Amino acid sequence: MKDLSGVDAQVLLDKVAREVARRFQTGLPIASSAPGQVGPPFCAVCDNRGHCVNTCSPHADTIRAAGADRIGGAPGIGAVDRQIASMIDHTVLKPETTKAQIEYLCAEAAKYGFASVCVNPFWVPYCAELLHGHPVAVCTVVGFPLGANSSALKAEEARQCVASGATEIDMVLNVGALKSGLLDVVERDIAAVRAAIPGVILKVILETALLTDPEIIAACEASVRAGADFVKTSTGFSTGGATAAHVALMRRVVGPDIGVKASGGVRDKADAQMMIRAGASRIGASAGVKIMQEVAGLTGGLKKAARAAAPGDAY
Amino acid sequence: MKDLSGVDAQVLLDKVAREVARRFQTGLPIASSAPGQVGPPFCAVCDNRGHCVNTCSPHADTIRAAGADRIGGAPGIGAVDRQIASMIDHTVLKPETTKAQIEYLCAEAAKYGFASVCVNPFWVPYCAELLHGHPVAVCTVVGFPLGANSSALKAEEARQCVASGATEIDMVLNVGALKSGLLDVVERDIAAVRAAIPGVILKVILETALLTDPEIIAACEASVRAGADFVKTSTGFSTGGATAAHVALMRRVVGPDIGVKASGGVRDKADAQMMIRAGASRIGASAGVKIMQEVAGLTGGLKKAARAAAPGDAY
Repeated sequence: MKDLSGVDAQVLLDKVAREVARRFQTGLPIASSAPGQVGPPFCAVCDNRGHCVNTCSPHADTIRAAGADRIGGAPGIGAVDRQIASMIDHTVLKPETTKAQIEYLCAEAAKYGFASVCVNPFWVPYCAELLHGHPVAVCTVVGFPLGANSSALKAEEARQCVASGATEIDMVLNVGALKSGLLDVVERDIAAVRAAIPGVILKVILETALLTDPEIIAACEASVRAGADFVKTSTGFSTGGATAAHVALMRRVVGPDIGVKASGGVRDKADAQMMIRAGASRIGASAGVKIMQEVAGLTGGLKKAARAAAPGDAY
Repeated sequence: MKDLSGVDAQVLLDKVAREVARRFQTGLPIASSAPGQVGPPFCAVCDNRGHCVNTCSPHADTIRAAGADRIGGAPGIGAVDRQIASMIDHTVLKPETTKAQIEYLCAEAAKYGFASVCVNPFWVPYCAELLHGHPVAVCTVVGFPLGANSSALKAEEARQCVASGATEIDMVLNVGALKSGLLDVVERDIAAVRAAIPGVILKVILETALLTDPEIIAACEASVRAGADFVKTSTGFSTGGATAAHVALMRRVVGPDIGVKASGGVRDKADAQMMIRAGASRIGASAGVKIMQEVAGLTGGLKKAARAAAPGDAY
C-alpha cells in the first residue's frame, strides 16, 4: 500500500470519490475483490459496480475495505443531492412497458432515493412487492391520461390501487367537464376519489397544456376544496408538459400548504431546477437517473448500459 | 313557376340535387319558406339548410314543396353511400371534448347514419339520452388508451358503461403484458371484460403501432379465444394508427366471422376505402363527416361552419 502520511484527508476523499465515479461510469469493477450480486432485483442495475450501497451492504463493505472512509448513497449523491432525489417521482407510464423495465425502475428508485415510482395500475402489486421494506412510495395513476371516466369508476380504480399496494394516487381531473363550465362536476369528481382513499396522498393532474389560466385557477381551487394534497401539471400524454409559468400560477393559487408537482417534459437538471424555483415541491419525470447524474456532475450511459443488459421479460 | 314540359326528369333531379348541395355548402337556406328549427339537439347542425331530413320531416316537406321528387338522407347519401356510413364509428375521444361537441357528434351520427358514436365513458349517459330512438349505437372505450389497468377494473368499467347506456365496448388489451410474454394475462384480461358484458359487442384494441407481427397474431388469437367480436388496430393516442398491412394481417388471423376495425389516422375517403379493401369491416374516425362529403362528391365547410355557430357549453 502507498504511504498516505502527509496526504490531506479531503484531497484523498475527493480522489477516492472521483475514482469510484470513473469506474462506475466506465463499467469497471469498484474493487478486484467485489463480491457477487446480492439481493435481487436490485443487482440488475449494479453489475458489481458498487454503486448500490443503499441496498447492498456487502458492496459498501468492499468499498470501505478498498480505503474509502465515507461513501455516498450513489455516485456523488450526498445530503443536498438526496434532497433533490426525494422530490422525484420516478416515472414510467408508457403502455408497452415490460416487467423487466418495471424492475429497473424500482431498482433505480431504491438506489437514488426517489420519492416514488410512478407506474400504471397493472404494475402496482409488483412494485409494492419489489419495494417492500424500502422507503420508496408506490405511486399510480387514476383516470389516466384522459380523465374522462365516471367519478364512480375513478373512485373504484383508486380504491383497488391502494388495496393492491399504491401509497400515492395521481388522478386526472375531468378536463371536458371543466371546458364545458361544469365546475361542480369537476369538484365532485375529485371529492369522490378523495373519499375513496382517506389518508392516501392524492394529486390532481390538471393537464395544464389544454387549459387557460382562469381554468387552471378554477381547477386548483376545486382541488383544494375537494381535499387534494397536490396539484400536478400534466400527464405527459397531451400536447405539452409543465411550464414554469403554470407551476408558479398553481403555487400562487394553492398557497404553501398544498404540493405542486411539475410533470411532463422535465428532461434534465436544468428543467427540474427551473420547476423547483417556480414553486414545484415534486417532480414527475422519466429522466430521474439522468437528473441525478447531472446533479452529481456525472453524465453518460448508466441507464442505457444497464438496460442493454436487461434480463428476459418472463414473468 | 317555370314551365317544366320537355325537361328530362333525371336532368331536373340532378339540377335540384346540385342546387340543394350548393345552398347547403354556402349556407343559403334551402327554400325561402323553410320552417324554424325542429327537434333539438339535431337542429344545431342544420340552421335551416334542410340537410337533416332523416330526423326532421318538416324540412323534407319543404324540399318536396320546392320541387324535389327524391331526397337523399343527407346531401348525396344514397343506398351505397349509406353502406359506408354504416361502417363508421364516429369518434371524439380527446379529453378536452365539451358537451356542445358531444351534441354535434350525436347529431352528425344520426344525420349520416353512422354505426355509432364513440366517446369517452363520462359522455355515455348523455349520448344515450341524445340518441334515444335513433339507430346509432353508443360505443365507448375501456382501459383507454393505455390498457394498463387491472382486469377487475376494466371489467367494472365495462359493466358501468353498459349500465349507463353503452351498446359497444372498445377495450385496450394489456400491451405491457403482451410485450412481457404474458399471453395468459392478456387473454384473461379480455375474458374478464367479455364475462362482464355478455351480449354486448366487444372490440379489442391491439395498438398495432407498438407491436411486432407475431405479437399482432398472438393478440388476435387471444382475442378470438376470449370471445371478442372485433379486433381493432389503434387507440389514436399512440405512435401510429391503422395500416392496410396490419388490417390485412388481422383479417387473415381472425377469419371472416370476426370484425376488424381500422382506427387511428383514417382521415379521408381514400384511407377508408384502403382499409375496407384490406379487410376492415368497421372504421373508427373523427373524420366521418369529411369522408361522407367526399363520398357524396362534396367537400368543404359543413363541419367547420356548423361548429363555428356552436351554442354555449353550459350543461
